[in-house]
Amino acid sequence: MAKIIECIPNISEGRRLDVVERIVDEVRKVPGVVLLDYSSNADHNRSVITFCGEPEGVLEAAWRLISKAAELIDLDVHQGEHPRMGATDVMPFVPVRDVSMEECVELAKQLGERVGRELNIPVYLYEKAATRPERRNLADVRRGQYEGLKESIKTPERSPDYGPSEIGKAGAIAIGARPPLVAFNVNLGTTNLEIAKAIARGIRGSSGGFVNVKALGVDLSEQGMVQISMNMVDTQGTPLYRALEFIKTEAKHYGVPVVGSEIVGLVPLQAMLDAAAYYLKLHGFSGEQVLEKRIFGF
Amino acid sequence: MAKIIECIPNISEGRRLDVVERIVDEVRKVPGVVLLDYSSNADHNRSVITFCGEPEGVLEAAWRLISKAAELIDLDVHQGEHPRMGATDVMPFVPVRDVSMEECVELAKQLGERVGRELNIPVYLYEKAATRPERRNLADVRRGQYEGLKESIKTPERSPDYGPSEIGKAGAIAIGARPPLVAFNVNLGTTNLEIAKAIARGIRGSSGGFVNVKALGVDLSEQGMVQISMNMVDTQGTPLYRALEFIKTEAKHYGVPVVGSEIVGLVPLQAMLDAAAYYLKLHGFSGEQVLEKRIFGF
Repeated sequence: MAKIIECIPNISEGRRLDVVERIVDEVRKVPGVVLLDYSSNADHNRSVITFCGEPEGVLEAAWRLISKAAELIDLDVHQGEHPRMGATDVMPFVPVRDVSMEECVELAKQLGERVGRELNIPVYLYEKAATRPERRNLADVRRGQYEGLKESIKTPERSPDYGPSEIGKAGAIAIGARPPLVAFNVNLGTTNLEIAKAIARGIRGSSGGFVNVKALGVDLSEQGMVQISMNMVDTQGTPLYRALEFIKTEAKHYGVPVVGSEIVGLVPLQAMLDAAAYYLKLHGFSGEQVLEKRIFGF
Repeated sequence: MAKIIECIPNISEGRRLDVVERIVDEVRKVPGVVLLDYSSNADHNRSVITFCGEPEGVLEAAWRLISKAAELIDLDVHQGEHPRMGATDVMPFVPVRDVSMEECVELAKQLGERVGRELNIPVYLYEKAATRPERRNLADVRRGQYEGLKESIKTPERSPDYGPSEIGKAGAIAIGARPPLVAFNVNLGTTNLEIAKAIARGIRGSSGGFVNVKALGVDLSEQGMVQISMNMVDTQGTPLYRALEFIKTEAKHYGVPVVGSEIVGLVPLQAMLDAAAYYLKLHGFSGEQVLEKRIFGF
């Protein structure tokens, strides 16, 4: 069974779609690597690219993409709503099949070393690949963005893990490893945004809740509801069902019903199986019992 | 994307394991067909074989298996606890991927016609392939077993769909098409078997419950509980979560807790996704959002 790693680079170009195509083409060129998705946002002036494959292929595709983006994107003229610090702004490796997080961390380091050495781009290792606790969080790594980093990179606190302590037009890049992230939103049958905000504060790790949950209260009052919008950054450690049950309990306290939820984008199979097994009260259930898994061996 | 059909023949041999091997070998010989599992039970004197593949390969493997079993198994000397009427007793085709139930029914008819004509074995089409309502249920088709059928096959009601109206040493065979079957057991925190029996009566189709549920009350008093043991014969029509919620409601009436459940053997992915989506209150969720499904395209 082949090892499979997913890679989701974000590049700082979402308007010149011909440039995006040329960068994405670098991924297409690598045999065995599958381009799963890419989409561009003009307001953010940013594109998200998703591809996967065996470690060697993914590493090669990642390297080519970073090289091409550095060639075609000039941060000195880049403007967009989304915070960014580099042409390829962030590149996470995600273990999908038969790969450990440690292997993804190794891949991040291998890539980072080469990017620093051959492209002269400063590299910060982040999340599970972080070399310092304060670099785990991407927002902290990107603080000050491209413009601010030009100066601050010269300080010891901002010294990159690889590459020079100075910034060229391609900016700096965050390379890391992380579990698959799930965008999970839960809707409440009220238009009182304060309730959603209070529950979001209760559930997110940054204000005392679950360590693997990021959450915001979102106003959907035109649809007659409010939303707790979550990024579940590790659904093995903090499962979807636990987040939902927490929100149900809190909502009850306010006398407000949970009217529904949604998953935006992709979700790992195991997160769904865990939810099914929990609520069906299954004991001793294994993913190997899934017919398709047995037949297709994914 | 290749069409995939699963086939789960039951043969009337569970003691002479060399004979079982020779029969299973016929499946192994067919290129492209994957043998997923086989297991023998000596008390039942019966083996269950599971294989899958594209329709043509599965048809060929099924034909070979039936031919070999007819050659090596003599029903006149067969004894075992499990009801049976033929060397290959039953052979269901199950749609797994990109295949309709109608295609599985066609496959059953194609195979049945050949078995009747070339092997001179009486064939009954059952479940979704049944030509008469009273032949849908396998237990009805097998009534009287091999010994009883020797005489009754001459009556118009028991006239086979293909092959002669007389029985040789290979007996008769039921060939059919059906959805994947899930063995789903729910345990109650009581030793009162009557409660499990009453709930089983309430949930099974044959006594007024859900049309796709077969259920029995089972005594597990040594483990301090009783069980509602179910065969869910169509988890799209009657989902696992609906069965569990029904049992929870009934158990509450008796003041008894549901302490757990189990799935024995395989379960289709969709049945688990349906349960997760139901309990997570997901709106608009699609199986295409499962990361592995997207990557491996099963």
